[in-house]
Amino acid sequence: MQKFPIHASRRLRATPYTERVEASGLTGYTIYNHMLLPTSFGSLESDCQHLKEFVQIWDVSVERQVELRGPDAHKLAVMMSARDLSSAEPGRCYYAPVTDRNGGILNDPVALCLAPDRYWLSIADSDLLLWALGLAVGMNLDVEVFEPDVSPLAIQGPLAVELMADVFGEEVRSLRFFRFKWFVWRGRNLVIARSGWSKQGGFEIYLDDNSLGIQLWDDIWAKGAPYNLKPGCPNYIERIEGGLFSLGNDMTREDTPLEVGLDQYVNLDSHDFIGREALRAQAKQGISKKLMGLRIDGAPLPPLAMPKDCMADGQRIGMLTSAVFSPEFDTNLGFAMLDIAHAETGSEVQVQYEAQLRNAQVCSFPFTR
Amino acid sequence: MQKFPIHASRRLRATPYTERVEASGLTGYTIYNHMLLPTSFGSLESDCQHLKEFVQIWDVSVERQVELRGPDAHKLAVMMSARDLSSAEPGRCYYAPVTDRNGGILNDPVALCLAPDRYWLSIADSDLLLWALGLAVGMNLDVEVFEPDVSPLAIQGPLAVELMADVFGEEVRSLRFFRFKWFVWRGRNLVIARSGWSKQGGFEIYLDDNSLGIQLWDDIWAKGAPYNLKPGCPNYIERIEGGLFSLGNDMTREDTPLEVGLDQYVNLDSHDFIGREALRAQAKQGISKKLMGLRIDGAPLPPLAMPKDCMADGQRIGMLTSAVFSPEFDTNLGFAMLDIAHAETGSEVQVQYEAQLRNAQVCSFPFTR
Repeated sequence: MQKFPIHASRRLRATPYTERVEASGLTGYTIYNHMLLPTSFGSLESDCQHLKEFVQIWDVSVERQVELRGPDAHKLAVMMSARDLSSAEPGRCYYAPVTDRNGGILNDPVALCLAPDRYWLSIADSDLLLWALGLAVGMNLDVEVFEPDVSPLAIQGPLAVELMADVFGEEVRSLRFFRFKWFVWRGRNLVIARSGWSKQGGFEIYLDDNSLGIQLWDDIWAKGAPYNLKPGCPNYIERIEGGLFSLGNDMTREDTPLEVGLDQYVNLDSHDFIGREALRAQAKQGISKKLMGLRIDGAPLPPLAMPKDCMADGQRIGMLTSAVFSPEFDTNLGFAMLDIAHAETGSEVQVQYEAQLRNAQVCSFPFTR
Repeated sequence: MQKFPIHASRRLRATPYTERVEASGLTGYTIYNHMLLPTSFGSLESDCQHLKEFVQIWDVSVERQVELRGPDAHKLAVMMSARDLSSAEPGRCYYAPVTDRNGGILNDPVALCLAPDRYWLSIADSDLLLWALGLAVGMNLDVEVFEPDVSPLAIQGPLAVELMADVFGEEVRSLRFFRFKWFVWRGRNLVIARSGWSKQGGFEIYLDDNSLGIQLWDDIWAKGAPYNLKPGCPNYIERIEGGLFSLGNDMTREDTPLEVGLDQYVNLDSHDFIGREALRAQAKQGISKKLMGLRIDGAPLPPLAMPKDCMADGQRIGMLTSAVFSPEFDTNLGFAMLDIAHAETGSEVQVQYEAQLRNAQVCSFPFTR
């Protein structure tokens, strides 16, 4: 693996926390939403182990917000989301797949209803702002669509609640999963949600002034020693073990939420949204492919680069989209989009690694030991 | 500057040429349109010098195409472009700034009219597909909007025409600037345009089957020795010398084409497009800031990372958006968005580099020696 310098610029932005991140043992970067995202602080294995035992501070500024504000903000949010947001309440977060007319996935944001006329869509890696803006202009809606100065910082891990209570007060303990409230920090109101891109529990702090990033990081860091706080980031191993899908890797515009198994976030009968007719037709007709878990035999695998073919009886029957060795499960775990005939627990398939075929067993999510 | 491995994945795609690029002395990568883009093959200075004397092969697959196809493709293209495309002709390329309702720049693609009902928008670094799709859905247009399997390869430099003639035949010599034609290569028709993101002249080959990337690269490479062909890429020094602006760096949604000096690509009276009213008002009222050239005193500057403040009489009067030392001009050159009072040739301003203020002289584009 060659190494190259990554140059931040106005086009590939640094974050309010970059200075601290780079001084904290960073060993890997990627780019996400035109911004720097750490990928490791040592090794994926040691980061993963620490995340499961203690607490980490994550620079997830790349979770950019698309703000919808104005009289038609609610209407636009409802229209954009396969999840029914028509009775969305302030203080709640909603995982809300966004689809095109064919039901293809454009993004899978978490929608925060800040007020009836104000939403944040906390986005995965595509310029969802341009989709929202195109709809707003095309339909002549009375809504502003913009990216506010908001850079989330996540606190993740089993000890997150202890650390957060030390920094923001005891009230954070009562915050329920996928709820948010405004908390006072240095005389300022910050949105804090019980959420985050891991299965270890934690919080996301929506800092809304990038000049305060270092101060916020330092205030949290100063309270971290009792909890063995370390810097971290979304972890490739942990997210696969936990069944968290990555836009662009495990799902694209070529896939629908039904094919990815997000049925519980798709409401076909309660509200109108873009893609509903296509998804209704697909629900009626049945899906022809499905994203499934795989346990892959053989030597430990590094994180998957480009997708690999999945085979059965010498035929290509799908595609491996993410995979890595899991120390906890002591096997290779992955996600694969498989023809429906093979998309059932217990099916045996093969994955094509160069000239080698590896046997793999199909299973459902989340992985269980 | 720390170095990190860049992992290609389905989300951060490798290109059809990546294998050859990585075997050819690559020394820098960036990410652009969710894809790998080389940034150097040695040093910026040596790459730049070679580009001006000989010929280079550039993997510019990141110039993704947004294809508009169908009965309303023309209507949508016209509506999206500040440049008047209403009489666009097949075989021509059009530099076409795309703006939002406020005239803010969303992208600055080159539009290729393939047929009256078929356009390619060869995009800069934002998901313009989502803007086009949002408009199409919002206005219920009869048009398909998708990213085709097209990965441009550029041949740039003064000897480009000789090399291209050896590979594709003598007819390429007659291709005029910003025109394209279909040329036969191995029994296949390829769009080839006289264009490219340098001022040294050359061509862009729109390969429309990613499985043929290595073959195309090798066929060109095999004819390159007489012309001292080397691998290259858009060069930071050369593009600044030549006055080529970078979306995300020198212009964003906060800027209008009039503020960036793209007036000749804005037709306010001949066609209706999104942003026209705002731009008409701005043209009438006058702009309050403008992108200008700067010659910056002092020691040679490396490529600019994040923007720097521009100052005059102790006041912030603008922002440096790109800058680097030019060996040819023997000075530091840059672009700056300046308050209109300072945006005239001959003005003296300062650029804030940490604690140091550097003197700089304002000038127009392109830079002249």
